[in-house]
Amino acid sequence: MKIGVIGLGRMGANIVRRLMRDGHDCVVFDKSAESVEKLEKEGATGVRDLAGLVKALEPPRSVWVMLPAGQVTSETVDALGDLLGQDDVVIDGGNSFYRDDIAHAARLKRKGIHFVDVGTSGGVWGLERGYCMMIGGDDAIVWRLDPVFRTLAPGRGEIEPTPGREGRDERAELGYIHAGPNGAGHFVKMVHNGIEYGLMQAYAEGFAILRNRCADALPEAERYDLDVADIAEVWRRGSVISSWLLDLTAAALARDGALSDYSGYVEDSGEGRWTINAAIEEAVPADVLTAALYARFRSRLDHTFGEKILSAMRQGFGGHVEQGPAAAKQGGGA
Amino acid sequence: MKIGVIGLGRMGANIVRRLMRDGHDCVVFDKSAESVEKLEKEGATGVRDLAGLVKALEPPRSVWVMLPAGQVTSETVDALGDLLGQDDVVIDGGNSFYRDDIAHAARLKRKGIHFVDVGTSGGVWGLERGYCMMIGGDDAIVWRLDPVFRTLAPGRGEIEPTPGREGRDERAELGYIHAGPNGAGHFVKMVHNGIEYGLMQAYAEGFAILRNRCADALPEAERYDLDVADIAEVWRRGSVISSWLLDLTAAALARDGALSDYSGYVEDSGEGRWTINAAIEEAVPADVLTAALYARFRSRLDHTFGEKILSAMRQGFGGHVEQGPAAAKQGGGA
Amino acid sequence: MKIGVIGLGRMGANIVRRLMRDGHDCVVFDKSAESVEKLEKEGATGVRDLAGLVKALEPPRSVWVMLPAGQVTSETVDALGDLLGQDDVVIDGGNSFYRDDIAHAARLKRKGIHFVDVGTSGGVWGLERGYCMMIGGDDAIVWRLDPVFRTLAPGRGEIEPTPGREGRDERAELGYIHAGPNGAGHFVKMVHNGIEYGLMQAYAEGFAILRNRCADALPEAERYDLDVADIAEVWRRGSVISSWLLDLTAAALARDGALSDYSGYVEDSGEGRWTINAAIEEAVPADVLTAALYARFRSRLDHTFGEKILSAMRQGFGGHVEQGPAAAKQGGGA
Amino acid sequence: MKIGVIGLGRMGANIVRRLMRDGHDCVVFDKSAESVEKLEKEGATGVRDLAGLVKALEPPRSVWVMLPAGQVTSETVDALGDLLGQDDVVIDGGNSFYRDDIAHAARLKRKGIHFVDVGTSGGVWGLERGYCMMIGGDDAIVWRLDPVFRTLAPGRGEIEPTPGREGRDERAELGYIHAGPNGAGHFVKMVHNGIEYGLMQAYAEGFAILRNRCADALPEAERYDLDVADIAEVWRRGSVISSWLLDLTAAALARDGALSDYSGYVEDSGEGRWTINAAIEEAVPADVLTAALYARFRSRLDHTFGEKILSAMRQGFGGHVEQGPAAAKQGGGA
Repeated sequence: MKIGVIGLGRMGANIVRRLMRDGHDCVVFDKSAESVEKLEKEGATGVRDLAGLVKALEPPRSVWVMLPAGQVTSETVDALGDLLGQDDVVIDGGNSFYRDDIAHAARLKRKGIHFVDVGTSGGVWGLERGYCMMIGGDDAIVWRLDPVFRTLAPGRGEIEPTPGREGRDERAELGYIHAGPNGAGHFVKMVHNGIEYGLMQAYAEGFAILRNRCADALPEAERYDLDVADIAEVWRRGSVISSWLLDLTAAALARDGALSDYSGYVEDSGEGRWTINAAIEEAVPADVLTAALYARFRSRLDHTFGEKILSAMRQGFGGHVEQGPAAAKQGGGA
Repeated sequence: MKIGVIGLGRMGANIVRRLMRDGHDCVVFDKSAESVEKLEKEGATGVRDLAGLVKALEPPRSVWVMLPAGQVTSETVDALGDLLGQDDVVIDGGNSFYRDDIAHAARLKRKGIHFVDVGTSGGVWGLERGYCMMIGGDDAIVWRLDPVFRTLAPGRGEIEPTPGREGRDERAELGYIHAGPNGAGHFVKMVHNGIEYGLMQAYAEGFAILRNRCADALPEAERYDLDVADIAEVWRRGSVISSWLLDLTAAALARDGALSDYSGYVEDSGEGRWTINAAIEEAVPADVLTAALYARFRSRLDHTFGEKILSAMRQGFGGHVEQGPAAAKQGGGA
Repeated sequence: MKIGVIGLGRMGANIVRRLMRDGHDCVVFDKSAESVEKLEKEGATGVRDLAGLVKALEPPRSVWVMLPAGQVTSETVDALGDLLGQDDVVIDGGNSFYRDDIAHAARLKRKGIHFVDVGTSGGVWGLERGYCMMIGGDDAIVWRLDPVFRTLAPGRGEIEPTPGREGRDERAELGYIHAGPNGAGHFVKMVHNGIEYGLMQAYAEGFAILRNRCADALPEAERYDLDVADIAEVWRRGSVISSWLLDLTAAALARDGALSDYSGYVEDSGEGRWTINAAIEEAVPADVLTAALYARFRSRLDHTFGEKILSAMRQGFGGHVEQGPAAAKQGGGA
Repeated sequence: MKIGVIGLGRMGANIVRRLMRDGHDCVVFDKSAESVEKLEKEGATGVRDLAGLVKALEPPRSVWVMLPAGQVTSETVDALGDLLGQDDVVIDGGNSFYRDDIAHAARLKRKGIHFVDVGTSGGVWGLERGYCMMIGGDDAIVWRLDPVFRTLAPGRGEIEPTPGREGRDERAELGYIHAGPNGAGHFVKMVHNGIEYGLMQAYAEGFAILRNRCADALPEAERYDLDVADIAEVWRRGSVISSWLLDLTAAALARDGALSDYSGYVEDSGEGRWTINAAIEEAVPADVLTAALYARFRSRLDHTFGEKILSAMRQGFGGHVEQGPAAAKQGGGA
């Protein structure tokens, strides 16, 4: 089918490519003319502004927005609301907050325009492996877009079927689901990322324990100089903790077991935070997901004010004089 | 090669089967005569006691002990120490504490007997998928046993090779590693299980957040009735959090999305605890692995004394009268 | 000075009493006529509705709202906005969310009415001990209300002065502060309650470790049957962890060291949750405050869905059959 | 009574002083002759070695050991075992591990010598405020030493009696308890310190949230420039979270609200770690106490290996290029 795509960054451009490979017509726009030109050469129809994009599509139109979550996405959705008409559909494939989806959908609905939110997982690997998609919106509209989702999804591939799924919605096995009404798609994607933080932190802590097993402070007989690259590799085979994240870890450690190119300054994006906010709203304990988020916060700080409070208290009750940051540097290898 | 195997439970029996399938001779013993007979019918040589086992092997003998960690294993290792001779080797393939390995190795060494500790992952799937093994011991002895490890390991299979591993120890790619001196094998396996707890808890919390999204306490527009079985399934394809543990979760949820057959009473074994002890010894923060362990502790309690302390304090400073356990039951579905 | 007070629950009624004791005139209103009558007998001027309350005060009027946070408070503030006039002031002494304060203040400002938010700590003990108050609003208005705050605050009492405070705002030493603009008062109170959760949980966990030291699973020589009531008492004297919360714990344990009257079902109010949300917004790690909140969530659940996920996974990879809830009950005494 | 004291550091010397003030005879020894001389001038009997100390006392002798936990204490206890006789008693007032107590007591018992373990809280303030003591040992011996404990303890002071304690062991109200058999004293002190870590971290996180409320990343209307010194001060009066630790925090913040003299490098001693080990042995969830310990571990590291693992994974699946440590430094003020 014919579809407009706005936002031709790494994710957006590859989505266009995967769609075109499977025979879809893509009308593409990005504020960078260069990005548009590049995809034009690969077969897409480039346009110079949103109005041009709307003009190049036929009703009922479908426009996939693939922009950073927040203000840019909101402004684009609103601008599309002014340009599109009755029964057209706006798809937000970015990482928007599910409450923003609900607001966007409500604003568009007043003009008879549909809204579909798509949580899209796949990162830089999506072009090749396909995108795992979690979709929120009205049933009829999600079905209307089904050819697009089917193309973008990874498909069954060589992954073994789950026993007991006979008779269930096959879309899940193809790599996309209609999760529920507007917001549900991004909500599920949000929790997906929350889990991702937790999984990553579990591996991170485990490897830290392995690597620090050679510490001088330990009794000599219990000190091991472990090869974390080989350990990551062996766990990929037949072990309970094999996973794609472990595959990536094994690859990074094979390059350099000390990971000396990395400082350990770890960003977080909105989804991890929103997941915790959602857990709190639901009164669901989420100790692991939260600890994983906090580890990232902490990784970006030299010292926290809280730690200074601790030092001040210790001096207050015990006369303990703090060791300086020089000492801290020595510990930096951990 | 010829090898003795002691302990024919689920793991031990399947290890014997996988060894025999590949042409190894197995002399087997278990305190249950029935277990011995069963494997005799499948081609193993059964014996009636440890002395018989030692007699049925030729020096230098190899004896694989596959028993519950702790006292039983210790006693068996010591008994073998009395029966075996110079240059024989005892292999502990169970889940022993790495400090016990160090002690066992030292006691056997005095008699000229070698000791090898093997952390063995694979569970009920090992016969078919192979066992991921982490090995501690002297280099020469580990090489002597290599035919056994090569048979038990999963092998390369269809798992994509990790880029950058050219020229490295190929054993890791076959599914087993020589991690270091005695204890190192079980130490690595211990951390493996610690990570396993963390990964499991990350998924558990995420699915709990999804499932509780229909709670009445939430604003109606933000309430979603999500199909957790389909969500687990879709995440198996092209998503960052795909893993074997997720495959298992998808299978369980496909059977029953409410998991009503489970009460949520979750055991833990020694490895998870020892991992935290090791982290503390090394002064490595392990927030996620610890929270995962504590969630299991808590799952087995009705209420903690600590929670009663909280209620008592709240009554003390605020006159808050506690809601009864009746209310708690209502929350039980979460 | 003359002041109106709306909401005569435990906190509101005692605030009126403490104000009257010190010579202030109180005009009081509550939806319960009985509550109004009771305070009339003690010397307050009772009124039958908000209009009557406004009428009974002279401009510039001061009205203290002491109602449950959320809708009731918002509606009352808005209703007062319709009744009060230029330069009057509405004080919200409840536990409102600081963002609601900002909205309330903005709405009142359009009508020339001032707004002051007061986080009020003191619980059932405030009448006797005084109220610790954290105030947000414009400087001039906070000073206008100073006689009220001075009366309600605990005052210097017998608490030893903090060295180094010479020349600083003496109000902090009297037990109230002007924290900042609107919302700042309730923000500080919110963090106060967040800390409170953390402190309580620290004691709770410690006492649980003490009480479970007699567990059968421990080696006999390391099993102690500790008297937690005496322990709480002794820590009140000369120890680093003495506090008012410990005093309350000691009193509860002196009544019954097993706390058998409590089930351990622990409520949480908004402040604990908002504190975590604030930490996340600021990217400040708050592991302890969050764990304390989650312990309360967990205390109100029979089992979590996440725990069932764990059991299902364990059965999947290891064939582990879950022990039933019967076993869980046995653990209930912990 | 007459008592020997070994170890005249800050704690030991003040214990001697408090004992002498109340009329006890102290025979003192320290490897530093200067420390011995100093106390001789204040009225103690100085000796030059352990043998001299034993000689200067009359049977049944009492010797209080006040040395760093671990090897020094063990060696001294063993040396005293060689010098003392039947019915003499060794008191370990340091921070020894409770399992060491059990071993020490067993070794001394073989020679007819008694052992008493005393967890001693009071820090640099003990001379003036008295020491809170938690005692393990045989009943008769603990009573024999009662005059010493009674002198060292803070006594009732001006602390309000706990209602409901009528008829209970009055020693708790004087500031010392006989907790149980050997090891029980140090066990209770250990948990005391574990709780201390948790309380400290709760305050630390709360103050960090307050101080970071002026962060540029927040919406302007919700940004507050809070005076943490005044906030700490006001919470000392009438608030639920008043405590001695808060008093100390208020004093530190009154000197410098930014705590710029501290780097935030926070040591931990054995007790915090042992408390977590004990919780794990008992299968008691201790999320808060553990998180507090880990925050200290993390405070001493520049970056963890785990954080590098996270960065490597993020690059692997998302192509995320890590921001450098330069950026981390900017965040250092938090």
